[in-house]
Amino acid sequence: MIAKSMEPFVSGSSEIRKMFEEGVKMAEKFGAENVYDYSAGNPGQLPPKEVYAAIDHINHDLDPHLVHGYMVNAGFVSTRKIVANDLNKRSDIRYTEDNIIMTAGAGSAINALMKSIYDPGDKQIVFAPYFVEYDNWARNYHAESIIIPQNEERGFEPDPEELRKALVPEVKAVLINNPNNPTGVIYSEETIKEIAAVLKEAEEKFGHPIYIISDEPYRELVFTDQEVPFIPAYYDNTLIAYSWSKSLSLPGERIGYLAISPRSDDPEEFFGAAVVASRVMGTTNAPSLPQLIINECIDARVDIGYYRKNAEDLYGILTEAGFTVIKPQGAFYMWVKSPVLDEYEFINALQEERILGVAGSAFKGPGFVRLSFCISNETIQNSAESFRKVGERFFG
Amino acid sequence: MIAKSMEPFVSGSSEIRKMFEEGVKMAEKFGAENVYDYSAGNPGQLPPKEVYAAIDHINHDLDPHLVHGYMVNAGFVSTRKIVANDLNKRSDIRYTEDNIIMTAGAGSAINALMKSIYDPGDKQIVFAPYFVEYDNWARNYHAESIIIPQNEERGFEPDPEELRKALVPEVKAVLINNPNNPTGVIYSEETIKEIAAVLKEAEEKFGHPIYIISDEPYRELVFTDQEVPFIPAYYDNTLIAYSWSKSLSLPGERIGYLAISPRSDDPEEFFGAAVVASRVMGTTNAPSLPQLIINECIDARVDIGYYRKNAEDLYGILTEAGFTVIKPQGAFYMWVKSPVLDEYEFINALQEERILGVAGSAFKGPGFVRLSFCISNETIQNSAESFRKVGERFFG
Repeated sequence: MIAKSMEPFVSGSSEIRKMFEEGVKMAEKFGAENVYDYSAGNPGQLPPKEVYAAIDHINHDLDPHLVHGYMVNAGFVSTRKIVANDLNKRSDIRYTEDNIIMTAGAGSAINALMKSIYDPGDKQIVFAPYFVEYDNWARNYHAESIIIPQNEERGFEPDPEELRKALVPEVKAVLINNPNNPTGVIYSEETIKEIAAVLKEAEEKFGHPIYIISDEPYRELVFTDQEVPFIPAYYDNTLIAYSWSKSLSLPGERIGYLAISPRSDDPEEFFGAAVVASRVMGTTNAPSLPQLIINECIDARVDIGYYRKNAEDLYGILTEAGFTVIKPQGAFYMWVKSPVLDEYEFINALQEERILGVAGSAFKGPGFVRLSFCISNETIQNSAESFRKVGERFFG
Repeated sequence: MIAKSMEPFVSGSSEIRKMFEEGVKMAEKFGAENVYDYSAGNPGQLPPKEVYAAIDHINHDLDPHLVHGYMVNAGFVSTRKIVANDLNKRSDIRYTEDNIIMTAGAGSAINALMKSIYDPGDKQIVFAPYFVEYDNWARNYHAESIIIPQNEERGFEPDPEELRKALVPEVKAVLINNPNNPTGVIYSEETIKEIAAVLKEAEEKFGHPIYIISDEPYRELVFTDQEVPFIPAYYDNTLIAYSWSKSLSLPGERIGYLAISPRSDDPEEFFGAAVVASRVMGTTNAPSLPQLIINECIDARVDIGYYRKNAEDLYGILTEAGFTVIKPQGAFYMWVKSPVLDEYEFINALQEERILGVAGSAFKGPGFVRLSFCISNETIQNSAESFRKVGERFFG
């Protein structure tokens, strides 16, 4: 009854569902306030006040024929111009509205990009640990991931030499997620430069474009002085997928965009294909009211200090308890080294103390556990004693 | 650079784009008020006042952590319960929230359903004339349409005998769009009963479910006493795709749902697969604020009288000008018989009088032209003289 081709998708989704169900069970057993749920990626912060004001303005003052109606499939021209101008602050590349397609979040953006470039049998390169939905999305277009294993020695930055070795003629794209989910690491300018050099060489060797799909929902969530390199400035064939899920705390609204670098091979042809790709997947266009929110909130941000404080406090708690932790520079994830080889054993020990995290294996990063610290600071403080107990058990 | 598999999608999309561009050109040349654009499907009516009140309420009074956050992929349980209860008014079938998945419009709903059931090489049956995006969506899953030609003698209702002849083992679904775009015809209870009987027979013969995918965005847009049969009451393996684009005039917001009949083969397994299908296409979930609008507006409707009056006035103008027209019973489309075999010649004559319609061939219904009367009544009145002139040219 269910299509055979659905099977890998259905089986692949069990890991996160299991954790979700575990959280529900634990909340029932111990009370929600006694469960320290570091498993989800739902921002704990409310959207900034500009969002609420924008909704009022849209609902009462804008031309009501505009607000909820169809627009061209690529999205409102006004919104696409604002997005282009925003990107143009980051380098001397000149984006216009004809390089921007508004999408239902970054996931839809990446799907439209993949549909535009992947033929059956094509390959993409991903750097572990990574958001494994990339594999499912590629599979939608019968393309497959080549996984470059995580590199602890390099602090979880990708190794350009490993990239060079992995490149084969079937590779049409490389996925980069910076700041990174699940590690919280920011890939440095040097790493991006080296990756760009390796890919340019490969483009010449294989005689076709190799795109960087730059997945940037955490671009503005940076706690340190480290800058997030703007990849199109280093590599022409760069496609950006963006979402306001984190920077405006609007994950439920599904609002984002894709941006085709005007320096890429044939941006006009690509735009036409990506509009069609975006339309034929059935969403037709990005939701209209959220596009109009962006028109008024392009410079608004959630409070980065909230996530910085959570990062520092959780880092303190974990290191004091004896754990080895990558200190996050951005996003809202902490990548904790499992004190035992099999991180599921660590996960079980955490659960016994009512702490929920996600196994690194779910990100193709075995031996680690991802903790999302987009929860309240109070919950983090309350979890300290539990982390201490788990630490004692392993480090004694 | 662009995937080869994108080519059929890109070439297939030219017809409607051409009409859109023509409209822009004509508006520039003659002024927008002097162009009678019957080509688009963008509702001319504003959403009912309940929608504006709901947005205010959601923006100011609901728990703000709920409003814009992630929910389970299937959508808010509260919304899914309200949708299930609404469906339960239509028959003695008992839908629950576990049969409903909120989607980004009917297009996303149909895509999730198709992804759940189609393997490469599978087939679907469509009754011409029909919304050709059905073909593109099926092609996303490497399935193909078997087209049953339009049947003018039956008043554009499907012929169950033709359906019987078209059924082959590869057919996994039959698409039904009632009231129909582009004809405005409502398929009668008798037709639905006969289709159900033919499909039940075929299910037994071929030993697997054959689903009806019932695309129902125009379900509430009915001008006559004729009832729109609720298909799940006649056929167990029915999957509904719904959108509030027309009934609440919210096409830009992308809010709809899919409903799996609790009487279908294994509704629980199907629900699991459709949730995954819906998620891995990248949209993650239906936009959250629009779901909450539905919670408060499930009984609200646009003014049907507006479309009824447009239907009657345009029907009067066209018949007086000598044209053969199917009098619409629902939706907001009129299916006009071309006075010459090649309807593009008719389209050109209309354009000379600044009237834009869509060629029937774009719906696999050659020899006809679709006029969308979701525009203002004033525009319809102003177009009378132009229709009269075109009529004179052909009949005069």
